[in-house]
Amino acid sequence: MFFTSDNWAGAHETIANALVKQADTFQPSYGISETDRAAHESINRLFEREVSTFFVATGTAANALALASVNRPGGIAFCHCEAHIFEDECGAPEFFTNGARLRPVDGPLGKIDPSQLAKALEQFPHGSLNSGQLMAVSITQATEVGALYTLEEIREISKIAKQYGLPLHMDGARFANAIAATGCTPAQMTWESGVDILSFGGTKNGCWCAEALIFMDPARADGVPFLHKRSAHLFSKSRFVAAQFDAYLKDNLWLELAGHANKMAKLLAQEISASTTMRLAWPCEANEVFAIMKKAHAEEAQKAGAHFYDWPAPRGMESLVADDEYLVRLVTSFATKPEQIAQFAELI
Amino acid sequence: MFFTSDNWAGAHETIANALVKQADTFQPSYGISETDRAAHESINRLFEREVSTFFVATGTAANALALASVNRPGGIAFCHCEAHIFEDECGAPEFFTNGARLRPVDGPLGKIDPSQLAKALEQFPHGSLNSGQLMAVSITQATEVGALYTLEEIREISKIAKQYGLPLHMDGARFANAIAATGCTPAQMTWESGVDILSFGGTKNGCWCAEALIFMDPARADGVPFLHKRSAHLFSKSRFVAAQFDAYLKDNLWLELAGHANKMAKLLAQEISASTTMRLAWPCEANEVFAIMKKAHAEEAQKAGAHFYDWPAPRGMESLVADDEYLVRLVTSFATKPEQIAQFAELI
Amino acid sequence: MFFTSDNWAGAHETIANALVKQADTFQPSYGISETDRAAHESINRLFEREVSTFFVATGTAANALALASVNRPGGIAFCHCEAHIFEDECGAPEFFTNGARLRPVDGPLGKIDPSQLAKALEQFPHGSLNSGQLMAVSITQATEVGALYTLEEIREISKIAKQYGLPLHMDGARFANAIAATGCTPAQMTWESGVDILSFGGTKNGCWCAEALIFMDPARADGVPFLHKRSAHLFSKSRFVAAQFDAYLKDNLWLELAGHANKMAKLLAQEISASTTMRLAWPCEANEVFAIMKKAHAEEAQKAGAHFYDWPAPRGMESLVADDEYLVRLVTSFATKPEQIAQFAELI
Amino acid sequence: MFFTSDNWAGAHETIANALVKQADTFQPSYGISETDRAAHESINRLFEREVSTFFVATGTAANALALASVNRPGGIAFCHCEAHIFEDECGAPEFFTNGARLRPVDGPLGKIDPSQLAKALEQFPHGSLNSGQLMAVSITQATEVGALYTLEEIREISKIAKQYGLPLHMDGARFANAIAATGCTPAQMTWESGVDILSFGGTKNGCWCAEALIFMDPARADGVPFLHKRSAHLFSKSRFVAAQFDAYLKDNLWLELAGHANKMAKLLAQEISASTTMRLAWPCEANEVFAIMKKAHAEEAQKAGAHFYDWPAPRGMESLVADDEYLVRLVTSFATKPEQIAQFAELI
Repeated sequence: MFFTSDNWAGAHETIANALVKQADTFQPSYGISETDRAAHESINRLFEREVSTFFVATGTAANALALASVNRPGGIAFCHCEAHIFEDECGAPEFFTNGARLRPVDGPLGKIDPSQLAKALEQFPHGSLNSGQLMAVSITQATEVGALYTLEEIREISKIAKQYGLPLHMDGARFANAIAATGCTPAQMTWESGVDILSFGGTKNGCWCAEALIFMDPARADGVPFLHKRSAHLFSKSRFVAAQFDAYLKDNLWLELAGHANKMAKLLAQEISASTTMRLAWPCEANEVFAIMKKAHAEEAQKAGAHFYDWPAPRGMESLVADDEYLVRLVTSFATKPEQIAQFAELI
Repeated sequence: MFFTSDNWAGAHETIANALVKQADTFQPSYGISETDRAAHESINRLFEREVSTFFVATGTAANALALASVNRPGGIAFCHCEAHIFEDECGAPEFFTNGARLRPVDGPLGKIDPSQLAKALEQFPHGSLNSGQLMAVSITQATEVGALYTLEEIREISKIAKQYGLPLHMDGARFANAIAATGCTPAQMTWESGVDILSFGGTKNGCWCAEALIFMDPARADGVPFLHKRSAHLFSKSRFVAAQFDAYLKDNLWLELAGHANKMAKLLAQEISASTTMRLAWPCEANEVFAIMKKAHAEEAQKAGAHFYDWPAPRGMESLVADDEYLVRLVTSFATKPEQIAQFAELI
Repeated sequence: MFFTSDNWAGAHETIANALVKQADTFQPSYGISETDRAAHESINRLFEREVSTFFVATGTAANALALASVNRPGGIAFCHCEAHIFEDECGAPEFFTNGARLRPVDGPLGKIDPSQLAKALEQFPHGSLNSGQLMAVSITQATEVGALYTLEEIREISKIAKQYGLPLHMDGARFANAIAATGCTPAQMTWESGVDILSFGGTKNGCWCAEALIFMDPARADGVPFLHKRSAHLFSKSRFVAAQFDAYLKDNLWLELAGHANKMAKLLAQEISASTTMRLAWPCEANEVFAIMKKAHAEEAQKAGAHFYDWPAPRGMESLVADDEYLVRLVTSFATKPEQIAQFAELI
Repeated sequence: MFFTSDNWAGAHETIANALVKQADTFQPSYGISETDRAAHESINRLFEREVSTFFVATGTAANALALASVNRPGGIAFCHCEAHIFEDECGAPEFFTNGARLRPVDGPLGKIDPSQLAKALEQFPHGSLNSGQLMAVSITQATEVGALYTLEEIREISKIAKQYGLPLHMDGARFANAIAATGCTPAQMTWESGVDILSFGGTKNGCWCAEALIFMDPARADGVPFLHKRSAHLFSKSRFVAAQFDAYLKDNLWLELAGHANKMAKLLAQEISASTTMRLAWPCEANEVFAIMKKAHAEEAQKAGAHFYDWPAPRGMESLVADDEYLVRLVTSFATKPEQIAQFAELI
């Protein structure tokens, strides 16, 4: 019963086998192989336009390079206060941008509240040397707590960003889960809704380490090849990431895997709803289930082999959780089996 | 006939299969899995002491983190003027150190000449604010042009570095080739000879992307976990690099593969020595052969399917190469087959 | 009626004349002149111990160097959410630290609330790679809104910082006003209360551009000479800052000037209290008066020649100010004349 | 007899008095005062076009900001191997550019040799990720060893830079000496000859600390206000630097002072030429005299009160100086008196 994180899983066998097939061949290094080109083409097709793609191996690299690509002296990027770039990357965005600042904005369920964003932006008068320069807005889809922005919500954020001339970045570590859950196309979810730069994740959804940093408008990616190389994220055997993407996108494997993870999460949520000892903290929209349970009960479940973390209650939702309770996060993945859910259901 | 670089090869099947075996399991993320621990242990055994190891996926990451770990304000690191960190990493060392400076030192065949190093160091009077602070010495083993430092030569460099209190880093992208060629132990080649930090490469020798940054004295690695994470080089599925190392080190696969590459290079060198149309530029000591041939001939050979690069003559050796000639670099790897050598021999 | 900021004033004539006296002499450059040494000695005497002092010309330089001196990879420094380093320096701390992060903590009147600091620190579990490393706590004395920490309050903050092994920095751009207002000694206000690093301001209190970055324990200042030089804040004619400090400290000129500014502020506050058209927002403790007045009235006063800024209400105090009112900041300085106060009193 | 450096002098009395006159007034801070505006206008007139000017207090700040303003990821700037930015600023250019690299180019007497520059630039194939991106060329006028570029020489360098689309920066710490010596106009010496950015020095020529970073094309200075502020080089009492410039430029004081320094250097060079115990190393063109003398003699002269430094012989000129001799540098300034020269003449 591994519900700690979707990165505890290994790799899907199709991905692993694609690497085996690649192993025995010679190809040019540093991203110009046939395999790289083919994966770039697949991504262009997927997004229904010619984009500029950079392969990296960690979501943090994709996010930090995205911010570095839009960096300005004294730059300020806006993100949700629970965003991965703000909470979990040990200052990678600051490192890659040589000291830009992240300005957190709140909102329910990991989603930036547009009115709070507008208010935050207003506080930075244009040209004020004291406060620095506005630089970007970054949203996370699916959010850190498993919620989804609707297309309309993305467009609303984008509209505000555009009023200030700011590019919109989407941290899509769980982009696949969002697409699978909503049925939108990748184009709809991104550039058609005003997203300029996407961190498109594969690692959490069946790859070993495959993330694509995608610029919807290639003109925006001008200096990125140098940032990519200079940050040591351009692999000599880059095709090895490309090959993962190739297998990941082929025959919609990525959506199949994300669909499975979402389905497992729904199942888990149903079991929790039906249980008398746990309750859902908020609805499950993708592959993460947040629920509340007695601390004693949680520890028992963990002893019985259920792996999961307790989680700090989001700001303003502290009252949901009693003193003798934990808010817990349960994450499913491509590798979650129905039996694991069933086994967990028995525990609760 | 792929002699362009050892990173055009894919991965050895044992490595690829090790990943397949890992794919189907759940393990903790971010470097604390059993697989990670086991690989750390293998490295400890290999170096005959408890070292501190960080897994990354590119040699540039290992090198740049090594330098970042010994960074000082206004820091100056000394390396050979043909070193990878100086010539080929797009300023990654400068980026990771927030602007330390690399000071190139010359010497024959990619090896720092100790007397030139001593002279370069003397030029920096202790405490001079204008010039900055001495920070590290970095050597490359095997060198960029395929030569090897003897243990005595390493000790001589190390002795000079120690006189100034400077740590000695070894860029070991081709460490395996050096070990296989000399028969030294990894301990002898590193800490017993005064090397403090090693970039231990796997990628060029049969792995997909596996490099280990090794601190011989774990006390030196204090802040490195944060640098590792912050530079986005800590993989969530870190065990996937660890698993490569595990398979790489098991049953001395790494030495077998490097030994094979070295043997293929020797064979190639013999064919070139025996040929009337090419001559060796200098002796082959590891898995790189540098030779001189007529430009017209080189182009013919390339048309006939031989992949290799021409190479700038090292400073002071320009006269080796006539105007109508190229210096060419031919690199062999674990994947080079004797048939490729034979085929090339026929061409020349 | 210049109440916009204490940096609209020029320089006290004693300071200006000290520079004239220096002009006609030759002295060694880069901080090792007799004048520099004498100023260092004066500062040692003032603080009743041997400290390590670096002269700079802007408060931002002093603050940013202070933070750079205690920098760590992924470092996080805690300061008040209205602190100058957080709100007004265009990311200088981030630039000088190569991307450390400032974590704002709230509290009344620009003073960090100890319990909120403790809570903020608790959220960073030791060794968590995701969140980075704790690095420093910084307080401002007098605060941005003219309030003063008592010695006891400083000690309380310091005690919490020390529990986490964190150095305590004091932004003392208005240190003189704080000392003049409280009658404490500089030693009491700093190292005796647990302050490790002080930005000791002269510019706002009668100097042209003179700030001293003071390390109470010289051992902490190890790499600072290089940071100082490398950030271009070591003046060739450094003695020109030293000479300002020399004149500033001689015969307690600094306290006399700060005392005058404080007195003018008190006078201004009395006039406001007595007025029917304005009211004090909070008590005046140093040389800044915050008051509330009708917008229409403020604009009239400005037209009549009163220079001052309106100010955003501190978080939680928004209700103090009605929709048709402004919170305004009135700053006095060494150069404020009683006539200016009288003139303003007539306006209100 | 102070010949160590032109920064051992204090300030010219006209400059010092200008500050006294400023002291007693109130003016807006952070560079928008009338005094600032007036100094900006003077500089526009001096350069016969509308330029964009930023006041700083150290030459290192001007140079480092100049390079930061043209920074690119993986950027490489070319300068003479004896340039101040390369040899004497403790890595300030690297710090301000977050790790760009300086690539030294040789040439006689501190002047970049155009053919060597061309050759150095050719070694960087466009778009090569390994080597980084070309970013700027920087020359020093007068050079570190007191020589002058002719306008033709500047144009030649500029032409090469332009072929690569690179901006040309001039470190003009001794720009005044160059203008006074050649009789060129500032416009001729800069933008008319292809210089894009100038560090215009006042400090070495009678100011306390006044340097102007000048962008010939204001469009190039877009992000510079933020770099200026963020590096802590925007003074709150910025007018205090502006006032120095105002007095410096008024009635051509700057040229008068530089002309005096140059004249004193000429006189000194004549005395040395006439002496039997010293000889000129190369002709004196501005305010620096380089000469060769017996070590024993140099030490005697120093004991007798002559302040000067010995200097490393430029690369390729080592044979000029015998083993028992020193190359010495003698710098004159606005404050050098003929009596000092006469006194020195007696010593030699």
